[in-house]
Amino acid sequence: MKFLTKVVTFSGKVNLQLIRFGSFKASKLVYAEYGDPSKVVSVEEEEMPSPKMGEVLVRMLAAPVNPADINTIQGVYPVKPNLPAVGGNEGVAEVQEVGDGVSYLKKGDWVIPRNTGWGTWRTHAVSKERNFIKIPNTIGVADAATLSVNPCTAYRMLKDFVPLKPGETVIQNGANSASGQCVIQLCKSWGIQSVNIVRDRPEIDQLRGYLQSIGATHVLTESEARTTDMFKSGKVPKPKLAFNCVGGKSSLELLRHLDFQGWMITYGGMSREPVTVPTSTFIFKDICLRGFWMTRWCSLNAASKKREDMILELAEMVTRGHLRAPAHVLMPFNKYKETLEKSFSVKGFSGKKYIIDFTA
Amino acid sequence: MKFLTKVVTFSGKVNLQLIRFGSFKASKLVYAEYGDPSKVVSVEEEEMPSPKMGEVLVRMLAAPVNPADINTIQGVYPVKPNLPAVGGNEGVAEVQEVGDGVSYLKKGDWVIPRNTGWGTWRTHAVSKERNFIKIPNTIGVADAATLSVNPCTAYRMLKDFVPLKPGETVIQNGANSASGQCVIQLCKSWGIQSVNIVRDRPEIDQLRGYLQSIGATHVLTESEARTTDMFKSGKVPKPKLAFNCVGGKSSLELLRHLDFQGWMITYGGMSREPVTVPTSTFIFKDICLRGFWMTRWCSLNAASKKREDMILELAEMVTRGHLRAPAHVLMPFNKYKETLEKSFSVKGFSGKKYIIDFTA
Repeated sequence: MKFLTKVVTFSGKVNLQLIRFGSFKASKLVYAEYGDPSKVVSVEEEEMPSPKMGEVLVRMLAAPVNPADINTIQGVYPVKPNLPAVGGNEGVAEVQEVGDGVSYLKKGDWVIPRNTGWGTWRTHAVSKERNFIKIPNTIGVADAATLSVNPCTAYRMLKDFVPLKPGETVIQNGANSASGQCVIQLCKSWGIQSVNIVRDRPEIDQLRGYLQSIGATHVLTESEARTTDMFKSGKVPKPKLAFNCVGGKSSLELLRHLDFQGWMITYGGMSREPVTVPTSTFIFKDICLRGFWMTRWCSLNAASKKREDMILELAEMVTRGHLRAPAHVLMPFNKYKETLEKSFSVKGFSGKKYIIDFTA
Repeated sequence: MKFLTKVVTFSGKVNLQLIRFGSFKASKLVYAEYGDPSKVVSVEEEEMPSPKMGEVLVRMLAAPVNPADINTIQGVYPVKPNLPAVGGNEGVAEVQEVGDGVSYLKKGDWVIPRNTGWGTWRTHAVSKERNFIKIPNTIGVADAATLSVNPCTAYRMLKDFVPLKPGETVIQNGANSASGQCVIQLCKSWGIQSVNIVRDRPEIDQLRGYLQSIGATHVLTESEARTTDMFKSGKVPKPKLAFNCVGGKSSLELLRHLDFQGWMITYGGMSREPVTVPTSTFIFKDICLRGFWMTRWCSLNAASKKREDMILELAEMVTRGHLRAPAHVLMPFNKYKETLEKSFSVKGFSGKKYIIDFTA
């Protein structure tokens, strides 16, 4: 690459900016057909042009491999991109060059894609400035790369269904999931009690300690949840809101603990069993069951101030130490095959989040 | 009984009214413990005093035996009256005498109890005027006696959850239930298409003909519902609202036909199987599941104008021939044991509604 110095004014200040001559080769992870991600995804090179009017050139810093990314490539997700498509829906990038007429972003800014489906598994991209939301470049790369799916899911589920006052209770299963951990942290930050149910396991003390360390008010195994009298004793107010990402018996347990006229929001089904609801729970307990899908919320609100405000509020929480990325493994871009294999095996999704590190 | 003529003014007019001297014996069906209705319910006599200030003496004309009445006596219903209690929650009475200060009611008016739990299985009662809603005394006794449970259930379920425009579709299972028949008739009257699912049975043509005669747009057996392409073809708009009184596979079928962001309201569980919901239906179809219980609505709205307006609108529909009582059998009061036995056997509730006829 060759560069030339150009004088530009930005916010009234004079800046010197390196202008690239000609194009360079970027890499991206592409799939042309649906199938096993470790088989159908391959690296493709593409020429990176200079950004035109209103465009910016960004360099990806990090992008996670989320379950929905895998399901999309498998062709089993309701989102069906036009093929060939670039994988990935979430990630953080750094602005490297700005085209004419770009006013919101400048070189060195960190950005995340405004909408899902942008394709974050690529080293670089040239894209319209308006396709990005600027976030503080002072937070951790992994925190930034995982800001727009799980924390936003937790944020919307806590804000959009039942008004909660400090001291009131939320109950959730799959509490150690990436979104579950965000629910715990947002509840802690907002003064809401969280009752967190996880599967019975040998290393429960370790998991309990970890979830408490990020702010969980109570952690119960599924067995403990079946026998607890914490709500009967009145010590903990009955939950007005439940989040279900498991289904089957686990969601039935949530319904049992739910307060009169409480709401249960289903956003996942890790047990692969449906949600089962006794008739009397509907009629006499007057509950409300809804679902939540971040992708739809995002499509409907991509360009809204609501979306940007939420991202900035979450980034601010990261800065204050109230929110952090879930347990994760950084993997270099060139090990993408291994990353995809590890993210998803025949046994299902692994507990850890794999994040592609483009800077490695 | 001895009577005396008294001059009273009512609405500014001078009226002559027969005033009874002394009391007389009325009969009521009472239970002092929970159990098998045909065993624990017995006739009890009571002195009927003259109505005091603000009170009226009414004579019951007819009162149905509803499933909830039976379940209450069995002690398996969430409503637990103080014992001993008079059975029955619904019925129509005629005003026989009015006490001083009574202005809304006059002799000969037909009334229904304003709230559930008043105890309608009795020949007479003296009660505060404000405990009654006056209805036209020009409709059939059976129509009047069954106005406040099933028609009100259908009315509220159609009005309170999803705004429906004429031509839009409602789907329901157990369509031949008493409430189901009311849903059909209200839909017909309001220009809403009803898709009605009933169990497969030998005499399906007869049932289909009957439901169509009261206004059903479409009648499907459960087998037909599984294979119909009526919604795919676009001929019938996908239902925005579903009513479930069955549960199990039947409610799953309703969910399958429900439109994107549709609502399903559960108000019964005749199959005794829970409602089962695939996770994807919550997340990707964004449905909402709620329950409805007329008893709670009634407790919350007993004294409201909303309740009175609804009753009068429904009575008006009866007058216009848009609403009629479901298939029923009138049984004289003194055959109450047989009535209770026939209403509920070990096999469950019979298809017909039994109505106690106090005038027989």
